Amino acid sequence: MQQTLQGHINKIVQISNEEFAEMESFFLKKSFKKDEYLAQAGKTAKYEYFVLSGLVFASHLNDKGKIHVIQFAMENSWITDSHSYNMGKVANLDIKCLEDAEIYCITYENKEKLCAFSKKMEYYFRKISIESNILLQKRIIMSTYANFKERYELFIADYPKIDKRVSRTLLASYVGVTRRTLGEI
Amino acid sequence: MQQTLQGHINKIVQISNEEFAEMESFFLKKSFKKDEYLAQAGKTAKYEYFVLSGLVFASHLNDKGKIHVIQFAMENSWITDSHSYNMGKVANLDIKCLEDAEIYCITYENKEKLCAFSKKMEYYFRKISIESNILLQKRIIMSTYANFKERYELFIADYPKIDKRVSRTLLASYVGVTRRTLGEI
Repeated sequence: MQQTLQGHINKIVQISNEEFAEMESFFLKKSFKKDEYLAQAGKTAKYEYFVLSGLVFASHLNDKGKIHVIQFAMENSWITDSHSYNMGKVANLDIKCLEDAEIYCITYENKEKLCAFSKKMEYYFRKISIESNILLQKRIIMSTYANFKERYELFIADYPKIDKRVSRTLLASYVGVTRRTLGEI
Repeated sequence: MQQTLQGHINKIVQISNEEFAEMESFFLKKSFKKDEYLAQAGKTAKYEYFVLSGLVFASHLNDKGKIHVIQFAMENSWITDSHSYNMGKVANLDIKCLEDAEIYCITYENKEKLCAFSKKMEYYFRKISIESNILLQKRIIMSTYANFKERYELFIADYPKIDKRVSRTLLASYVGVTRRTLGEI
């Protein structure tokens, strides 16, 4: 398990076992159960999360009571409510487990300390943030596609094999189609 | 003019005039005319742009020939097609001037060199990337709001006073409403 975060970092910047052991102390490693909340709208998102195993998703409940899936995070992915976590503001997103999950959690303060402590980790987190930017910008572009099939294909490219692990309702919410349309794709 | 990028950096991390002069050499400073393209869909986005003056926007033309505004960038803002710029892939976005603009442009290679050269700039660009994440995540959340007035208010909070500088058509496209609905807000 521990190898996974180190492996993820190593894909971006080489760190030794000793360096990983040092930086791991900045994280909290926790197990969550299916349906458990990592963060909730209306409270402050205290942590950024790296998913070691399992599947979580971030969603927003709109003023008509409809849930919108903003992002999924499966193994080797980061997730949080960026505005809340980085600005210390109230979260707009619920972050919830779709499966039992093993997760590394890091507070804003510890992430800043870690980046100040290690140039490699500053570089790693800059690259992670860019990856997240790419995903979010693609997510916005996707929502403008009139063609549902293209939207779905882009979704599957970003989240390989996720369709086997997520309900049709959540898939349809992320892609922005009705369940009936999703069935036809 | 030069003070503006230095001023922007200084809000995040203190740099001296000497440090700024050194790092400025990594950028290209260019003037663009209203309606000029900075980057175009179908080509690679070679630069990330910091807007010193003027106003630019990124848009996507969907498969039905409809333009969708993805992002605006006014003074003191960064903009690019993240996927294309960072991955060297073909861009999905057009980036175009709505007003004459003075812009600092940086290639991917120069940005990486600058970050390797200066820990302060690595920190600055990590923070800029996080700011962009916050804006994009809010943009996605906004699109789920059933209430048009809330969408518009969130837009104006992110882009103060922009409504005086942008056509109703582009405003409506960003917020995701018809021009008629926008008129009623």
